[in-house]
Formats: sequence, structure tokens, C-alpha cells
Amino acid sequence: MLDCFFNPRSIALVGASLNPEKLSSVIYESLNSRFTGELYPVNPAHEALGRVKCYPSIKAIKERVDLAVFAIGAEHIPEMIRDGAGQFAGAIIVSGGFKEAGPAGRMLEQELREAAARAGVRIIGPNCLGIYDTVTGLDTFFIPPERMERPPGGGLSILSQSGSFAVTVMDELAANGVGVARVVSYGNKTDVNESDCLDFLAADEATSAVVLYIESVEEGERFVNAAARCVLNKPVAALKVGHTKAAAAAARSHTGALAGRYEIYSAAFKKAGVIELHGYEDFLLACRVLGDNKDISHGRRVMIITDGGGIGVAIADSCVDLGLEVTPLGSSVTRALRGTLPSVCAVSNPMDLTGSVIDRDFGDALQKTLEGNEYDVAIVASLWGPPGLTDNLPALIAEKKKYLKKPVIICTPGGTYTRQREEHFRAMGLPVFFTPESAARAVSFIAEGRRDRWA
Amino acid sequence: MLDCFFNPRSIALVGASLNPEKLSSVIYESLNSRFTGELYPVNPAHEALGRVKCYPSIKAIKERVDLAVFAIGAEHIPEMIRDGAGQFAGAIIVSGGFKEAGPAGRMLEQELREAAARAGVRIIGPNCLGIYDTVTGLDTFFIPPERMERPPGGGLSILSQSGSFAVTVMDELAANGVGVARVVSYGNKTDVNESDCLDFLAADEATSAVVLYIESVEEGERFVNAAARCVLNKPVAALKVGHTKAAAAAARSHTGALAGRYEIYSAAFKKAGVIELHGYEDFLLACRVLGDNKDISHGRRVMIITDGGGIGVAIADSCVDLGLEVTPLGSSVTRALRGTLPSVCAVSNPMDLTGSVIDRDFGDALQKTLEGNEYDVAIVASLWGPPGLTDNLPALIAEKKKYLKKPVIICTPGGTYTRQREEHFRAMGLPVFFTPESAARAVSFIAEGRRDRWA
Repeated sequence: MLDCFFNPRSIALVGASLNPEKLSSVIYESLNSRFTGELYPVNPAHEALGRVKCYPSIKAIKERVDLAVFAIGAEHIPEMIRDGAGQFAGAIIVSGGFKEAGPAGRMLEQELREAAARAGVRIIGPNCLGIYDTVTGLDTFFIPPERMERPPGGGLSILSQSGSFAVTVMDELAANGVGVARVVSYGNKTDVNESDCLDFLAADEATSAVVLYIESVEEGERFVNAAARCVLNKPVAALKVGHTKAAAAAARSHTGALAGRYEIYSAAFKKAGVIELHGYEDFLLACRVLGDNKDISHGRRVMIITDGGGIGVAIADSCVDLGLEVTPLGSSVTRALRGTLPSVCAVSNPMDLTGSVIDRDFGDALQKTLEGNEYDVAIVASLWGPPGLTDNLPALIAEKKKYLKKPVIICTPGGTYTRQREEHFRAMGLPVFFTPESAARAVSFIAEGRRDRWA
Repeated sequence: MLDCFFNPRSIALVGASLNPEKLSSVIYESLNSRFTGELYPVNPAHEALGRVKCYPSIKAIKERVDLAVFAIGAEHIPEMIRDGAGQFAGAIIVSGGFKEAGPAGRMLEQELREAAARAGVRIIGPNCLGIYDTVTGLDTFFIPPERMERPPGGGLSILSQSGSFAVTVMDELAANGVGVARVVSYGNKTDVNESDCLDFLAADEATSAVVLYIESVEEGERFVNAAARCVLNKPVAALKVGHTKAAAAAARSHTGALAGRYEIYSAAFKKAGVIELHGYEDFLLACRVLGDNKDISHGRRVMIITDGGGIGVAIADSCVDLGLEVTPLGSSVTRALRGTLPSVCAVSNPMDLTGSVIDRDFGDALQKTLEGNEYDVAIVASLWGPPGLTDNLPALIAEKKKYLKKPVIICTPGGTYTRQREEHFRAMGLPVFFTPESAARAVSFIAEGRRDRWA
């Protein structure tokens, strides 16, 4: 059970400090301002931090605490873990200087692992950023808020071997208003790993989707089973980096990970029903789509509606490349639309409403194509050059979508005028993407992560 | 010779109007404010536009003009072209209603083509947006400036079968401050096509790079020869859309293009030395990199330097996927850097300077790896979490780059704080990308488009 990490009532912060030069000061600030349980600063160098009592050791707290957070030199930690039996249930060790730091560090990590096993203490880390959790207010990420915005609360949980990767993603998500539930950076994962976390998140009511950054998985079969169980309850997507030789070598020196052959990971994801991600852009897209989107897609049949022929063709290319189906219009829908739309329109899939488009054409095309059983999802690609388009378009599309009860993705590439329109779409709760490729990938994630697999 | 299009001294605008509901009013406004030659409005419905004399016909101008721009109903145009012998050398026909509009339109276009051949008039279009040219001030794009920003002057020229695609790209380039020389949208290309334009641009001193959007090429061998000649002088990149069946069908209804098998295009690009683009994102990246960048890359060996291990691994993956070489560090460089950098750094390629990084580490790593003959180009991926990084970093990297005389690409993913740093990099003339994938693709374009092929 990982309750000591995801539902701690009390925390000891070992190495607590107010000195802004120490990373622990950031953690102390965060916990002080947002963690709602008991917080005990521990540091033999101080009697108090401000007006708060500071303890010389965890033992001196005299209460059992759920979680100890270590932000001190690596060499002292194994002994403190060994002495921790009965004093704390879990430890987050953000300190580096273990397996990733050569032979001496490797020995120290071995010592740490044995100490933890003997003391019955669960460990996240070392060499990690730990946990950022909007449910409990736990935040051991030692990056100051001016360098990393904290995302708001949401349903997305992120598991990451790389701390800096998690930081960068969280910062981007925050800037885009995408919320998260739990983010775990486990670094060297000497104890708690991705499978432990998946087991917890599978049953976690706060988590509606999980996205993983993976450099290596050591217990392959356990991972497949844990992921498959999680997939029964919510979508899981994973990026495995280091699929090339150079990158794999880099991953090894980064978190001491033996990356292994990519094909094995790809097959494992498939077996477990995990959505496979290819790179950083995919990772961000999956976070946005799976975390944000409450949409249900029952299949892979995409209708593309645009007022710019070239963009429509580019979207169709991207969709087909991703294994989505850009199926031709049925004859009754074609007849109905030929009777409704201006004759210059290309009534097909993709459908080109041309530069003569007015708002209502988008609405008519969307309704007539999606109301039957021929399509599962639509991409509406509105270019804003045509003078007949007004700022009422987003509301019109949102209304149709509500009535049709199918996901509608907006693709709206362009410059300043277009980016201002983005706000109107977002305000209507419509997911917006700026390129054909990203819109198509978003649809593929919605289709792969579709809820009917778990309904 | 296409001088009538790219260096016109006089223009007749047929259908000129001040009525803002008419597309021609946008063209008239643009030409009035930026075209430096003679401009003759032609419209039998008006004696004057404001205080400017308006002519009832081209004939009534009584002077030979270089270029006639037609923004009137399709049905009148063939006859006016037929009568144009000796009156104008070239015509841009923005009007639709030809080949793309069914059997009647197809006949009308055939009539147009015959008329042009007989009258000795060259034609761009019909069903197009024509030319936007920062060299001459010609602008027949009938999208009002509030819906499409005009890019500033620059060395990039764009050829596009799709008008809306060209509009969207120009709008994005303008928002990103990327300049252009000539943009040509030729739509149905009943006469002037991509090969004619390539022939002109090959020798055009204003053009330093060419990027094409292609739905179809009818004269395959001519295209390969024209592109290959252009590649002798400057980089050429091309996106062929409609490589999937659905998309190809859409392209046919869009500009009447018979798209043909993608593999043929891919082979033609290779033969001609054209950089092959895959989708809209690639197209934009190529515009930015080839248009903006004065850098010379002599090869494909990439050095990756980062302070975020996970991002470094992701960049290495992307580079290798694109056929770039992420070659390991040589032993003497490794020794030199081990003596210079803090011991926590992973001295390898990718190089991870870790969260303990300070500005100088980036400078040292860049200099020691690029100053020898082991690498052609570097990607510097700076994550801004580490507290030791300051706003002096961009200037430091720019200085090293100047000394090293090799291209340095910045990859800086993140949120608000990071996006503010972007400005500092740009101010130093460093190309900035926000994702590992886009930075890697930018490097691949620089390597493929490298100048030494033409030196």
C-alpha cells in the first residue's frame, strides 16, 4: 500500500531550511503553504525555522509520521532509513549521489535498499523530484514556483522516471491550464516503481487517466499486468525513450537505467492496452487529451470538415497515417448536404466548404455527417480567412456537439487573428489544436483511449 | 519569362471596386498602398474609384500593361484574354468556377487555355490567390489584412497549389516574424505551374530558399529538371499532400488535381535533391529554418547538450529517427570536459549538465565539443528549472556560436518562464524550438539544405 505517499497525514522534512540557496527551502515553502496535515521540519543545525520548532532528528519528533522527505547529502541517508523502523512508513529521497553516480554511489544505493527492506520503509527515489499532488497538497518538487508553475487540480496523473521531464511537462500543462491529480518522479526507483504506482492509480478515484515517461522497466511481466489492470479502469499512455542506441546510453547515465530493446516495450504496451506515445509532443498531447477531455469516441471513423481544401487534405493524410479511418460519405448524407450547402462546396470527406463559407455551413455539415452512425468523431478545421465566418462559430459548433454527443476536435492553424479565436473555442469547452498533425493525433488518442472499453 | 508577374511595371485590375463586400476591394487596397508601378482600375460600372479614374475595359487604357489581374465572374474571362493580345503580357486570374467546378467549368478552362495560347498571354490561376511579393509590392491575395497578416520581406519564396494553405502559412510566418520574398498560389495552374516558377526562382536574387506545397505535378520530368536546377543555387523543400487515398480524392475536388502515387513524388524529390516534407508542421519548420537561417552545416553529426537528462534522450531519439548522427564523444574531448565540468555531469552525447548547471557549463560544453572536427551542429536544450541558469545564457551561447562558426539550435520546452526566455534567444539571433522533435527536424533541414552543396 502506498497510502503513506498518496494520503499522508504527517510529514517530516529532513534537511528543512529557510536558506533560499538550499533546495529544501523550496520544499519547505511548498509544504508549509499547501500540505494540510502535520509538518515537522528536521535539521540539527536549527532549533526553529522562523517561529516553527525544528527537530534535531526524526526520532526527536516522538510521534510516528507517515512520510519522511530527505533533502540532505546521500551518505547519511541509509543509516537514517535503518533507524526509521517504526518511526515512518515511507520516504521520498530527492537527493542524488546514488546509482547514477558511479561505483561508490551504486554501493550506497545497495545499502539504502537493504536498509529500507529491513526497516519496512517504502522508498520513492533516490535522485528524483518525488511527488506533486493536488489532492493532498504534497509537493516535494524543489523547483521554485517562478521557474515551474504548478498545474491546477485535474484528473490526469503522470509517472516519470525523469524529474526534469516531469518538471517541463508540468510547466507546460500549467501554462495551458491543464490540471493534474498526482505527479510522481521516482528517479532511480530503488523501491517504488511504475508498477507500484499503477496499482495505486488503478483504484485512485482522483485519477481519470495515467501518462508515463519510461526509460526502463525492470520487472516486465509485473508492469504488463499492472498496466493492464489499470487500463480496465482508465486510459493509460506511455512514452518509452531511448529507442535508439545513443539515447539508450544517455538514459543509462541519467538514471542508471538499462533501457533494453524498444520492440519489447512496444509489444508490452500493446499487450496491456497502453497507448504508445512517440516523443515529447505526443506526451504533451496525450496529457491534454486524456486529462482534459470527457469525450467518448466509440471508434476510429473520422469526419473532416474544413473551409481550406489544402488543410483538409493534410489532415486526411495525418489521420490515415495514424490508422484512423477517413471513410467516404454515404449517399443519403451526400444527397442531404448537396441540398443544403452552396454548390461550390466539395461534399466529400474531407469536406471543403471553401472560402465562401458562412458559420451555418459548418453547423449543417457537422450535424448531417455526425447524427447518423457513419462517424465516431469530427475534426473541424476552420481557417479564418473567409469573410463569412464570425465569432459566433465556436458557440454554434459547441451547440451541435452537445446535441450530437460525439467528440469534436478543432484544428485552427494560423497567426494572430486565429490565435485570438482559440480563446472563443476554449471558452466553449472545445479542444483546440493548431496543426493538422496534432489534431489527428488527438483524435487517435481519444479513439484508443475510448471509454467504452471500460464502460 | 515570367517578368510580367515578378517585375511588372504596370497592372490593370479588372473588377476593381471600393465595395468592401467584393474581394477585389482588398486587392485594390493592397495594390494601391504598396505596388510602386502604374495601377489601372478597370470596371465598366464605375467612372472613378474615389478620385482615381476607372477604365471601362483594358483596351480603354490605351497603354500596354505588363499584368492584368482578373477578379470577376469566370464566364467573361476567356473572351477578355482572347482580346488581350498586345494589351497585356500576363494575367492573374483569382476567380474560381473553372476546372474545379464540374463539367461546365472544365470546358470554360479549356477555352481559357486556348485563348491564352492564341493571345500569347501567360496565366497564373485560375482559382487561386495569385502573388504576394515583398520585392515588387504586388499582392493579389484577397484576404483582408485583419484576417491575414502579411509577412515582412525576407529570402524565402513559397509556391502553393492551395491558396488557403498559402494564406495560413503566411499568417503564421508573419506572427513569427519570418520574412518572405515571393509567394505564388497558382491554383488550377492552367498555364504557369511549379516548374515555371522554379525556373524563375532559381535565378532570382531575392530568393534564398524555396518551399513548395504540391497536390499534383503533371509534367514530372520537367519538374525534376527544374527543381534540380534550382537546387544548384538554393535549398528547395516540398510537401506533397494526398499520399493517402482519402486525401488524394479530396485534392482532386479541391484543385482538380490528379494526385498520383506518393512514391513517385518521393523518388522525384530525391532525384532532384529536394528536401521532402511530411505535413504541415514540417512545412512551417522548413519555412522558418531555410528562410531565416544563414547557418552552414557541413554534415549530419549532431552534438546534444542539455541540463535535463530526459529531454536529452528524447532529442537523441528524434535525431536518430531522422537519420542524423548522434556520434559518441571522442576520448580527448571527454578528458578535457571531465577536467572542466562538475563531476555530476554526464560527459557523453547527449551531454547532461544536470540540475546543478550554471551558464558557464553550457558554454564550456559547447566550445569543447564543437571546436574540433567531430560535430557539424549542436542542439542546446536548456530547461530553466535549475537555479544556476541566468538570463546571460543566451548571450553566452550566441558568443560561442559566433566563435565556433557552426549552427547552434536552441530547444527550450516549458511554460511561462521558458517562453519569456525565448525572446532572449531570438534577440541573439539564435533559432528557438519548443520541442525535441521540432529542434531535431530543424537540424535535419539545415543538414539536408546545407550550403556546401552549392558552394
